[in-house]
Amino acid sequence: MHVSAVDSQGNFSGEYHTAVSSAQKPIKSSPLVGSQHLDKDRQCTFGFTVNWKMFSDSTAVFVGQCFVEDSGEEVLQTSWLLREKVDSQSSNWKATRTGRNIFTRMK
Amino acid sequence: MHVSAVDSQGNFSGEYHTAVSSAQKPIKSSPLVGSQHLDKDRQCTFGFTVNWKMFSDSTAVFVGQCFVEDSGEEVLQTSWLLREKVDSQSSNWKATRTGRNIFTRMK
Amino acid sequence: MHVSAVDSQGNFSGEYHTAVSSAQKPIKSSPLVGSQHLDKDRQCTFGFTVNWKMFSDSTAVFVGQCFVEDSGEEVLQTSWLLREKVDSQSSNWKATRTGRNIFTRMK
Amino acid sequence: MHVSAVDSQGNFSGEYHTAVSSAQKPIKSSPLVGSQHLDKDRQCTFGFTVNWKMFSDSTAVFVGQCFVEDSGEEVLQTSWLLREKVDSQSSNWKATRTGRNIFTRMK
Repeated sequence: MHVSAVDSQGNFSGEYHTAVSSAQKPIKSSPLVGSQHLDKDRQCTFGFTVNWKMFSDSTAVFVGQCFVEDSGEEVLQTSWLLREKVDSQSSNWKATRTGRNIFTRMK
Repeated sequence: MHVSAVDSQGNFSGEYHTAVSSAQKPIKSSPLVGSQHLDKDRQCTFGFTVNWKMFSDSTAVFVGQCFVEDSGEEVLQTSWLLREKVDSQSSNWKATRTGRNIFTRMK
Repeated sequence: MHVSAVDSQGNFSGEYHTAVSSAQKPIKSSPLVGSQHLDKDRQCTFGFTVNWKMFSDSTAVFVGQCFVEDSGEEVLQTSWLLREKVDSQSSNWKATRTGRNIFTRMK
Repeated sequence: MHVSAVDSQGNFSGEYHTAVSSAQKPIKSSPLVGSQHLDKDRQCTFGFTVNWKMFSDSTAVFVGQCFVEDSGEEVLQTSWLLREKVDSQSSNWKATRTGRNIFTRMK
């Protein structure tokens, strides 16, 4: 995941490169847009949307919080929902997967 | 929820006015940013982030799909995650709530 | 869903007959086991596990609360997680779906 | 978490001792009931309900799968929903938290 600079409103955009997929097509880097709080303690909550349009008709959303560990390292604790496209509302029940991801800064 | 025009990439922004809150402060309209697919069948998936910064340090994400009913009415079936800010990673387990919302177009 | 009598500990068992499935085999009635609180206001929380062993290797859990409406009708507001079996931990991320169900008493 | 022997139907019961709580009262060991598949590969899915009645009016459900690592160690990958009791259906939206837990066998 590569995130651009955050603007004065807390909005940001970037690219997400997933290592995993349940789609048939090859994985490509996908655009993300999101928003974060601007708390001075660096432990703010945030959320973003990933549009997998390069290889699937699914959309994912992540929500989480940044934590700064004693070592100074930032850890992003996130939960996500992945929405698959389904044909009709009668299939809506099975369209949403859920999970957790932990991100750390690449060195 | 008021959503602005969607741009050529599928990105959009808008305002979300919730009727409910677990925060202490008065509810205010809150900014949202998101992204949707641009499928021609009008049944695309989408996601967006709501930054409740006007009255809380929480963030919510919604993910869902648009369905067009036989009557021609659009229905947005969404799932959401609401992230509260917690003091430390040891409280991370309790920070995320989940639910469902159905949106229809205001007349 | 058919639930047997609740015992003095709040435990119960029963059968769940789903109308929907993502498995290939025909749907069959599946056993459930669960537990509820025994609050006197009839608005207790509860949870139960459905073992879909008759036609799939998935398991579902439901958690919710009973509400008594002004009409006297009971409404069960539930959230669920559906776990599919995957081959290895590297596929664990995609194994869990989430949703909501509302149950009312059959007349 | 202590789980009793699993019966021929896959049902089991036990005790869950959580390290964390959002309730006011002291934590006590809480009864659980659940069900698992009986696949011979030891990688079966399972679910269980924890009734926190000893110190709260909440209920939790866990669903997951057992994985056997190359070392022979068993790992239980689970997702959970925690349901709090709320006063009325208008507060139902905020009653459900979600998360993940990984369990390994105590030595």
